[in-house]
Amino acid sequence: MSQVAGIGVDIGGTKIDVALVHENGKIISREYIETRAERSPQEIQQDIIASIKKLMQFAQPSAIGVGMAGQVNPQNGEVYFAPNLKWHHEPLGQNLKNAFGLPVLVSNDVRVGTWGEWKFGAGRGCDDLICIFVGTGVGGGIVSCGKLLQGQSNTAGEVGHMVVDFHGPLCHCGNKGCVEAYAGGWAISQRYEEMVKSGISLSAKSVIQAALQGDPNAVYILEEAIEALTAVSLSLIHALNPAKLIFNGGVVNSHPEFINLIAEKIQKRALKSALINLQIQAGDLKSDAGVIGAANMALCLIQEIKRNT
Amino acid sequence: MSQVAGIGVDIGGTKIDVALVHENGKIISREYIETRAERSPQEIQQDIIASIKKLMQFAQPSAIGVGMAGQVNPQNGEVYFAPNLKWHHEPLGQNLKNAFGLPVLVSNDVRVGTWGEWKFGAGRGCDDLICIFVGTGVGGGIVSCGKLLQGQSNTAGEVGHMVVDFHGPLCHCGNKGCVEAYAGGWAISQRYEEMVKSGISLSAKSVIQAALQGDPNAVYILEEAIEALTAVSLSLIHALNPAKLIFNGGVVNSHPEFINLIAEKIQKRALKSALINLQIQAGDLKSDAGVIGAANMALCLIQEIKRNT
Repeated sequence: MSQVAGIGVDIGGTKIDVALVHENGKIISREYIETRAERSPQEIQQDIIASIKKLMQFAQPSAIGVGMAGQVNPQNGEVYFAPNLKWHHEPLGQNLKNAFGLPVLVSNDVRVGTWGEWKFGAGRGCDDLICIFVGTGVGGGIVSCGKLLQGQSNTAGEVGHMVVDFHGPLCHCGNKGCVEAYAGGWAISQRYEEMVKSGISLSAKSVIQAALQGDPNAVYILEEAIEALTAVSLSLIHALNPAKLIFNGGVVNSHPEFINLIAEKIQKRALKSALINLQIQAGDLKSDAGVIGAANMALCLIQEIKRNT
Repeated sequence: MSQVAGIGVDIGGTKIDVALVHENGKIISREYIETRAERSPQEIQQDIIASIKKLMQFAQPSAIGVGMAGQVNPQNGEVYFAPNLKWHHEPLGQNLKNAFGLPVLVSNDVRVGTWGEWKFGAGRGCDDLICIFVGTGVGGGIVSCGKLLQGQSNTAGEVGHMVVDFHGPLCHCGNKGCVEAYAGGWAISQRYEEMVKSGISLSAKSVIQAALQGDPNAVYILEEAIEALTAVSLSLIHALNPAKLIFNGGVVNSHPEFINLIAEKIQKRALKSALINLQIQAGDLKSDAGVIGAANMALCLIQEIKRNT
């Protein structure tokens, strides 16, 4: 029996995850690549192409889906700008199309992750949900009335740049008080450094560890990060009234107890009418959400194209 | 030639606006009622019924639509709670159905207002827009992919309770730092009173007037209100990436220059990708948005019911 499968590629700043994914969402086989972001875009893409070729011995994929942090053009698969990799105007979609002759979808990493959780993870069967990804940055995706929102210029779901404190600290985006400027890994690390003025830079992971061991500066910064995530959750719940709020991403996957803390605060503070039937939970797919979502989103796209032609 | 028309009712705390509205969105005739909210729900509803009867001499309406501030059950037209009028569990929809034998739709005042702007106002022809109403409270409506979002428990669009400063002042809803707690008329008035500690209560209108005349306390409060509205706009733009952001409501209709101030700040601070094609503007329908939207939403609802049966 032949199986329908897609390739999912999740391009991160430190590693690239490439997987052959069955249309039922199960990973058939996978390859990891160290990104080594200092390399040229060409070298990195050659590695991705080699990994896809290896995976094709298991099954012929019908499409390739890619998720990456950055701004992409979903029409032609061009990466306008990927800050982690310092790619500018990179024709990633075209390069993969040239290499394999398959349909290619290039999208945002958290948008494909949301697709994964929606179709095969914590959001299965739910047509109104929001995913918030908390890692080095904060991002998200919104499914409303059974559609993953793209927005009029492909920017929907930039929840990391929702403002939770307009008096707040400067964000990488240039604005003040974005949730990412409190709760993104970079912000946790930077805020601690600014606070202790030791000149020593601690990773977000270490700051969180210090907080859990009672370091009062770290406790303060972690509490503010959790308050900021609560605030953005309240904003999204009140604007969109979803049935599910799903958290994923490195920070909350390492510390699922943070999700419970946020959920308790939301239960106390949200409008009662918005809490009816609302479920707040961790994602099921963890770091697999990206490859599973990317592969499936690409498969669904070609089915849609077939239907319309 | 017979004309298709609906009745629109916009129930506010000080006045009730009842209009016979052509299906093309034009008001055929209208009646105003002083709410005198201290009266019983029965007395107020008798006045509404009398006004509708007067309007029926001009044309037979096909449906009745009502918008009011508060929580309503759109299924049966029950008003769970309307804070301005102190109505609890009032069967408004059923009462109007009994009186006229017509289909009745009861919805939120700002949601019907958004419908009005979308179908006949500043949002005509646009399928991804957000309306923010700034009056005594702050509310809104979201049209995404050509649908006015209701949410899973009918609470979508509560943009007034999006958090713009989680360290901020207490809101009527019990949470801290909602945009309404900075920019709602009640908040502008209350914050000024707390600041000057004169014991004299000024209306929001007077505080704004004082600010325009240079009173530094009033200037501060007005600037914070505008910052808060900018912050909630940025949050909505980044989450949803709409094509239009429309402002309506008493405060901005009296001071359209505030919309320009907000738009300038948004242009400077939003993600560039979200600004492509984004239009920020005043609503066209001003205080007519409610009756026009309510009447048309009711007409569209019965057309939808007809299509599905």
